[in-house]
Amino acid sequence: MIYERVALIGLGLIAGSMGLRMKRDGLVGEVVGTARSAETRDVAVALGLCDRVTEDAAAAVAGADLVVLCVPVGAMEDVAAEIGPHLAPGTTVTDVGSVKRAVIEAVAPHLPAGVHFVPAHPLAGTEHSGPRSGFPELFERRWCLMTPGAETDPDAVSRLSDLWTAMGSRVDRMDPDHHDLVLAVTSHAPHLIAYTMVGVADDLGRVTDSEVIEYSAAGFRDFTRIAASDPVMWRDVFLTNKDATLEILGRFTEELFALQRAIRTGDGAMLHDYFTRTRAIRRGIIEAGQDIDAPDFGRSTGR
Amino acid sequence: MIYERVALIGLGLIAGSMGLRMKRDGLVGEVVGTARSAETRDVAVALGLCDRVTEDAAAAVAGADLVVLCVPVGAMEDVAAEIGPHLAPGTTVTDVGSVKRAVIEAVAPHLPAGVHFVPAHPLAGTEHSGPRSGFPELFERRWCLMTPGAETDPDAVSRLSDLWTAMGSRVDRMDPDHHDLVLAVTSHAPHLIAYTMVGVADDLGRVTDSEVIEYSAAGFRDFTRIAASDPVMWRDVFLTNKDATLEILGRFTEELFALQRAIRTGDGAMLHDYFTRTRAIRRGIIEAGQDIDAPDFGRSTGR
Repeated sequence: MIYERVALIGLGLIAGSMGLRMKRDGLVGEVVGTARSAETRDVAVALGLCDRVTEDAAAAVAGADLVVLCVPVGAMEDVAAEIGPHLAPGTTVTDVGSVKRAVIEAVAPHLPAGVHFVPAHPLAGTEHSGPRSGFPELFERRWCLMTPGAETDPDAVSRLSDLWTAMGSRVDRMDPDHHDLVLAVTSHAPHLIAYTMVGVADDLGRVTDSEVIEYSAAGFRDFTRIAASDPVMWRDVFLTNKDATLEILGRFTEELFALQRAIRTGDGAMLHDYFTRTRAIRRGIIEAGQDIDAPDFGRSTGR
Repeated sequence: MIYERVALIGLGLIAGSMGLRMKRDGLVGEVVGTARSAETRDVAVALGLCDRVTEDAAAAVAGADLVVLCVPVGAMEDVAAEIGPHLAPGTTVTDVGSVKRAVIEAVAPHLPAGVHFVPAHPLAGTEHSGPRSGFPELFERRWCLMTPGAETDPDAVSRLSDLWTAMGSRVDRMDPDHHDLVLAVTSHAPHLIAYTMVGVADDLGRVTDSEVIEYSAAGFRDFTRIAASDPVMWRDVFLTNKDATLEILGRFTEELFALQRAIRTGDGAMLHDYFTRTRAIRRGIIEAGQDIDAPDFGRSTGR
């Protein structure tokens, strides 16, 4: 048993998946959950995401040796202010936010001395949200990036690392600012781009909705999956990782213009070279074990 | 048996999948294949994609009642010129190109009178290419869009439609120019965007290749899959569907700038509304049966 009592603050996809996994594998003594919505709390109990729920976050953290902040990044500060006075020395506080610098600035000032703050970000998720969307295998083979400060108690860091490892993750440490830049490239900018493309398709009066949807081909289908992600979570990601995201989008626009120009001028050699280079990155991802290479995209598991 | 002898010109992912499916289900009497590369021809015979191969396209079409052009769009004209003189009246010629107007202009002038030309585009594929990448279920539940002219023999059209239906596809008819616009939105522009984003990630010296690959999160992983598609095929798509693609990319850039501005000015309400709207499109795609909704993205089928 890695922790005696874990408090999940917020009960969406990530918290639900953590709860199911921790309980399934007996990783912790008790899972206490809380969420603002009464309906969410009821669902969480009914689905067994946690052993019991409390109405407010302050009650949830009482007696917990691990507190996990699973709310959107923009809600972290309020939650930290609410639970801060109720945290006992020796408690570990962590989070699962997609942005790390902004979360550290929002949460750290509210934590009393003697509390170990170990920010973390599991690189896992689906386009679904809410307590019903969790499943215990979500973190299997996914990275969990931890960004603790140099002064953080090493034992608290390694205990949390043990929990993530037990939930199936591979754990690594990173500087928070570097984390935010890497994620801007690999996740935040791609999400904004997917949102944009799906919005464009929706706007085009000449191509009716039903056609775009009915005949949606591989490229667009993948974009819609990304663009179906939780609106509140992603609004907060962009507002709190603003600089890195805007920098990457600037680079993206530059590059897109170069490719558009090659299309306009009929420069087939440039296009071919570019597309050949991008293919190699995909091979690297398969080799790094970060995706599967099934020829049918796993379609056979569908209805 | 829908056709006596089918000639597959070009033996990549689409032709290979057609050959495997037609043979598995006994849809045609004989499948003859040809490809420029001797290695591809050997692999096609070894894997049973076709019953026999010929060294050149002219020999492959001899005695065929269906000829399927499965080469990149930019190679269609040369192939049509080569086989034209060898086509018997009554033969049906079709293709599987992702662009329809350019293929019609490239192929039609080379076909003798009495040959039925029925352009088609199966909306199916993976990021893999070549004869080893085919599998018989590729077309299952996917659309095949046919764009025959008004003067085309209805029996020839419905016979080809029967073949695609038997291979698992849903078949629809469309005007070629309209097809090219719809596909620019749903496939061509998204592919170029994915290529661009993967190229940007590759360029960024500050974020090393290994980190981008190692920690590649959901958004970027999907982009790399798209951007791993066949470089020759996609070069030809962009060069031959230039106008529609550039128009959609222009709209995309406009929209992306509006979202970037919302991020820069901290307009969370605009972002939230936008992301909520794009979510609805995804629901439509699931309801239209064009994708699966498995919570783990089919990951469980992986290693």
